[in-house]
Amino acid sequence: MADLKSTFLRVYSVLKQELLEDPAFEWTPDSRQWVERMLDYNVPGGKLNRGLSVVDSYKLLKDGRELTEEEIFLASALGWCIEWLQAYFLVLDDIMDSSHTRRGQPCWFRVPKVGLIATNDGILLRNHIPRILKKHFRGKAYYVDLLDLFNEVEFQTASGQMIDLITTLEGEKDLSKYTLSLHRRIVQYKTAYYSFYLPVACALLMAGENLDNHIAVKDILVQMGIYFQVQDDYLDCFGDPKTIGKIGTDIEDFKCSWLVVKALEHCDEEQKKVLYEHYGKADPASVAKVKVLYNELNLQGVFMEYENESYEILVTSIEAHPSKSVQAVLKSFLAKIYKRQK
Amino acid sequence: MADLKSTFLRVYSVLKQELLEDPAFEWTPDSRQWVERMLDYNVPGGKLNRGLSVVDSYKLLKDGRELTEEEIFLASALGWCIEWLQAYFLVLDDIMDSSHTRRGQPCWFRVPKVGLIATNDGILLRNHIPRILKKHFRGKAYYVDLLDLFNEVEFQTASGQMIDLITTLEGEKDLSKYTLSLHRRIVQYKTAYYSFYLPVACALLMAGENLDNHIAVKDILVQMGIYFQVQDDYLDCFGDPKTIGKIGTDIEDFKCSWLVVKALEHCDEEQKKVLYEHYGKADPASVAKVKVLYNELNLQGVFMEYENESYEILVTSIEAHPSKSVQAVLKSFLAKIYKRQK
Ligand SMILES: [Mg+2]
Ligand SMILES: [Mg+2]
Ligand SMILES: [Mg+2]
Ligand SMILES: [Mg+2]
Ligand SMILES: [Mg+2]
Ligand SMILES: [Mg+2]
Repeated sequence: MADLKSTFLRVYSVLKQELLEDPAFEWTPDSRQWVERMLDYNVPGGKLNRGLSVVDSYKLLKDGRELTEEEIFLASALGWCIEWLQAYFLVLDDIMDSSHTRRGQPCWFRVPKVGLIATNDGILLRNHIPRILKKHFRGKAYYVDLLDLFNEVEFQTASGQMIDLITTLEGEKDLSKYTLSLHRRIVQYKTAYYSFYLPVACALLMAGENLDNHIAVKDILVQMGIYFQVQDDYLDCFGDPKTIGKIGTDIEDFKCSWLVVKALEHCDEEQKKVLYEHYGKADPASVAKVKVLYNELNLQGVFMEYENESYEILVTSIEAHPSKSVQAVLKSFLAKIYKRQK
Repeated sequence: MADLKSTFLRVYSVLKQELLEDPAFEWTPDSRQWVERMLDYNVPGGKLNRGLSVVDSYKLLKDGRELTEEEIFLASALGWCIEWLQAYFLVLDDIMDSSHTRRGQPCWFRVPKVGLIATNDGILLRNHIPRILKKHFRGKAYYVDLLDLFNEVEFQTASGQMIDLITTLEGEKDLSKYTLSLHRRIVQYKTAYYSFYLPVACALLMAGENLDNHIAVKDILVQMGIYFQVQDDYLDCFGDPKTIGKIGTDIEDFKCSWLVVKALEHCDEEQKKVLYEHYGKADPASVAKVKVLYNELNLQGVFMEYENESYEILVTSIEAHPSKSVQAVLKSFLAKIYKRQK
């Protein structure tokens, strides 16, 4: 495991070096230094779960047989493309959300002398993906499918961002819009495709599969992604800040969280008034009132029921899949997130 | 001509409608309305030169024979992809430059309730390009080359933006960096590839050509793009504001303009002091001092000499090209910009 991660990080260094010598651009010491610092700051500092899972999944699709060095390199490169995609979205998301910190350091646009240049840096991160793909996959039979895949998933993620942004338009705080269907759409598009479907789809393409034959796999992974985000919403309020590494602010931020959606579903008229009055206020007394309400409505119990039910449904769908190795991939994803505390 | 443009605008409506019904996303009335308004605001309001030139160039490559309806539609769709690319860059550039107006209306991010959502809208514009390409070109032999082309040109443009942004870093106004080589690199990457090479490359691909065989064409178009941007810099100071439709502010903005580069090249020590003291100041007296200096150095004459020389070189390179129809394409581009006043 430690070994897998250090191999994976070595591939990062190779890809970075190649990008810094990309012949499609005339580099100068200044520009090379800027991009290198920007990459090191934004790309490799996360948990790398998405990236590593491409390698894991590919291994499982190959029924656990030893991979060649080239296969490891290529699966890692695809994994890094997903990490690059994530970095691109996070750099821009932090600008749009006026966030302060990310992964325990100031957001990139908050770094002195960066500012809104971060917008173009986000664009550069995004542009590195096709550069990596062209350099290492141009000759592969699945090259065009890889390009289509990344394009489609990026489009879906940006569309999810859009509904997230336009439902929380400044000055239009309106809880009546917060339904389970809106929540599901936001998280499905903003998170599930790129975090769950994309890594497996990359591994399937590398294994020579046609993605049109794997709609069922996509559906299962999207469902898993939705479940993952519901956990995220739950932990934001009920998780241990020490364990999850941050103090949640979804209530203050008027987020369309699964919790507020469930609260709206279960509350009576009196409780509804409390929500409408106190949800989305920075004032700690308001936040406390919302949390009391969540407890009155036993949202922890509602979540546990949801978690168990989701798990059952996912296991059943996975076991209905004809291929044992695909089952193994899906089960490994599920095992990583079931009942997670962070 | 009016007819070509109205046909071209009809294709816009078709592409827009298809995007608003893209099956990769679950649309709602709200999100559809947002995207439609954003597209109408940002995509079709420019001069459309880049887009229209794909259709023109393709026609010339086909030696002027009548195009089929399908050919016109496809060439127009590629033209619109370039207009979409331009809209994407402009929406984000205006945010980074804190600009106020664009094409005679407030910049998109200045529109009430848009704000930084414009960042994600820029991303959406960019994502529409592969959606259009996939829908209309997926079955073509040159599909993968189209994807590679748009990816490479976008990468070059974003890299050009980067050097532009990092050389004018807030609080680091340093004229000693402003050389002809820096100027050439900024404009070549930021403007020339997408404005001049990309339309012709699209037409060449549609005509069944392999772009690897057209490096000379690329070089000529990049040179033309550089010449175009030098004109832009010249007109910013010496053009008629009524004709060019805006009042230039390159001096105030401390731009790495061709004029300041030439001034630095030709000035003596005394004049250099004036430039260092007054270039990049908003104060009208400072701007006036810089303009007096430009006149003392006869930059209008220097520009005219550059213009004539560039023209000669370009014509010679064009006439060295073996194909008469490719020559026609290149000459048509050159004729559109030679001695332009706006
Ligand atoms: Mg955020
Ligand atoms: Mg956000
Ligand atoms: Mg969260
Ligand atoms: Mg600008
Ligand atoms: Mg700019
Ligand atoms: Mg200009």
